[in-house]
Amino acid sequence: MQLQDIGEQGFLKIIQSFCPPGVVGDDGAVLAELDHKSLVVTTDLMVEEVHFSDRTTSPRDVGWRAVAANLSDLAAMGAIPTAITVGLGLRRDTAVSWLEKLYQGMTACLGKVPIVGGDVVSSAVNTVAITAFGSVDPERVIRRGVAQVGDAIVITGAHGKSKAGLELLLFPEKYKILTEDPESCQDLIKAHQRPQARLDVLPFLAEFPRVAGMDSSDGLADAICQICRASSVGAMVDRHSLPIAPALLQMTDPATALDWILYGGEDFELVLCLPWSEAQSLVQKLGQTSAIIGRITAEASILLSNELPIFSGITGATAFDTSFEKFSNLYLEKGFQHF
Amino acid sequence: MQLQDIGEQGFLKIIQSFCPPGVVGDDGAVLAELDHKSLVVTTDLMVEEVHFSDRTTSPRDVGWRAVAANLSDLAAMGAIPTAITVGLGLRRDTAVSWLEKLYQGMTACLGKVPIVGGDVVSSAVNTVAITAFGSVDPERVIRRGVAQVGDAIVITGAHGKSKAGLELLLFPEKYKILTEDPESCQDLIKAHQRPQARLDVLPFLAEFPRVAGMDSSDGLADAICQICRASSVGAMVDRHSLPIAPALLQMTDPATALDWILYGGEDFELVLCLPWSEAQSLVQKLGQTSAIIGRITAEASILLSNELPIFSGITGATAFDTSFEKFSNLYLEKGFQHF
Repeated sequence: MQLQDIGEQGFLKIIQSFCPPGVVGDDGAVLAELDHKSLVVTTDLMVEEVHFSDRTTSPRDVGWRAVAANLSDLAAMGAIPTAITVGLGLRRDTAVSWLEKLYQGMTACLGKVPIVGGDVVSSAVNTVAITAFGSVDPERVIRRGVAQVGDAIVITGAHGKSKAGLELLLFPEKYKILTEDPESCQDLIKAHQRPQARLDVLPFLAEFPRVAGMDSSDGLADAICQICRASSVGAMVDRHSLPIAPALLQMTDPATALDWILYGGEDFELVLCLPWSEAQSLVQKLGQTSAIIGRITAEASILLSNELPIFSGITGATAFDTSFEKFSNLYLEKGFQHF
Repeated sequence: MQLQDIGEQGFLKIIQSFCPPGVVGDDGAVLAELDHKSLVVTTDLMVEEVHFSDRTTSPRDVGWRAVAANLSDLAAMGAIPTAITVGLGLRRDTAVSWLEKLYQGMTACLGKVPIVGGDVVSSAVNTVAITAFGSVDPERVIRRGVAQVGDAIVITGAHGKSKAGLELLLFPEKYKILTEDPESCQDLIKAHQRPQARLDVLPFLAEFPRVAGMDSSDGLADAICQICRASSVGAMVDRHSLPIAPALLQMTDPATALDWILYGGEDFELVLCLPWSEAQSLVQKLGQTSAIIGRITAEASILLSNELPIFSGITGATAFDTSFEKFSNLYLEKGFQHF
């Protein structure tokens, strides 16, 4: 059955089954008072054939990822999610089951966070526009522009896994690991299809007075560049401190694995800058694959160090590998974000 | 020049010139505390070739109308606008000037309301997804579901003007009035291209303890149907009480004019239900073309009365004209909202 067959009432019936009672029906949603918290707002669009396709992404995964991207933006601001609205542009011949699965994926990722409103219109390409709301203590907002020279750069988990998962989905014939280590492959594919916003990290940050940061949804290198640009600082990243999922090295050579880690994107981890001792305490608490991967510098450049041990007085070009150039290019002409 | 030529920095430079300093750059926007107000959220999508087209709508008007639709939804909830976010899906070959004019139209309609964030992605069809935030005293929320039997139905202005303006734009050769009364035509065209959200009405409602209502963006008949459905009541509308812009009767016959008034849509007036004496006081204060157009009844039907004087004891089918059927159909199978 297609959307054009079920009419408004059929459509509303589906939508309402995924929303708390009473929120669908008025011109807007009324949210409770915030009780001395600041409201954080973020919005993201996902477009068919640009961000997803029926060939590689199930509607449940489209819904999950659309929500995860927004929740990750809230986590990146230090905010606890309060609610989302869902704007949909849909082809008239969209299957009703596609819509239901989209909402199933969204609500699975949302957990207890409610969908409080939305809009649906006809469109030539299926489009999912989510706006998410969160609350944060005004003193605890994480911003990009407050990194300071000497800060440690912390990442909350290994990068490159989402890109590796996508590779496995797109080119299964290229990777023997699919039969040799199916469990690791499932882990990588899950990282791509069902990313988790790192809201679990927020309680560990409550004790720190200043945390700079953002999420790494557009890539780890991009996040570091954005923080440096916003804070008018530079960075030195030690390539040997970057956590690497062992399966990546089973799939490809170290240079390509590094490329996936730095530029793969869609990992939805947090990239945080804070004083060194606090960073060490944070990494200890987070455990797993969180790590200090570098430090904020006063230079107007972002460098990838090739030496061990890190930060031991870098002299001359030998200290940097070719990715330095790539970082710089990103800095100068990264092109349209998300394009 | 096209968007694909200007890169991220060029794009951000344009966007930032339309936003307050400091709001573009982080993963989300932080809004101030709401101070014991409730937060109201509403979202709307506009899609090229569905809601606008280069042939009939300038990018400035697209921006204006996208914002006006959202501000009208806030007004319909009794909320004062606080901020909006703007999500854009854009064709890569979109002219940079199109984007600039879109933002010019949005900010012109917004006045002092800031754009606090957004997202931009590539899309096969230009899509504008706006989410608007407002604040309202929790005791002053206007809802659809609280109309009561005996309430008067108030509209804040004449309807059908937007539809008439669209007619003039689409079929100028059909209407002699364009040369005979150009001033009235400009008024109708402006009603279509630059609708005004009725936020100016809100101060007059502050003294009333219960106001049911919504906006008439999807048509006056639709608004009445929605309120009745949500409140489990019926309505009796007196066709002779409907304000009618004189220019409509210069353009077309009375039956067609009535059709435009009831079903034309996009007038962005408010349809409010409140006790009779309060309604009279409100209409007196609003003046202009506001009017009491009918009353809420206990019947499970929405009737259009053809008699004068209204509400004088209606008996039998002669009291209703053929539009009754149309109203009922709307009630049963209005189809996809906005489709």
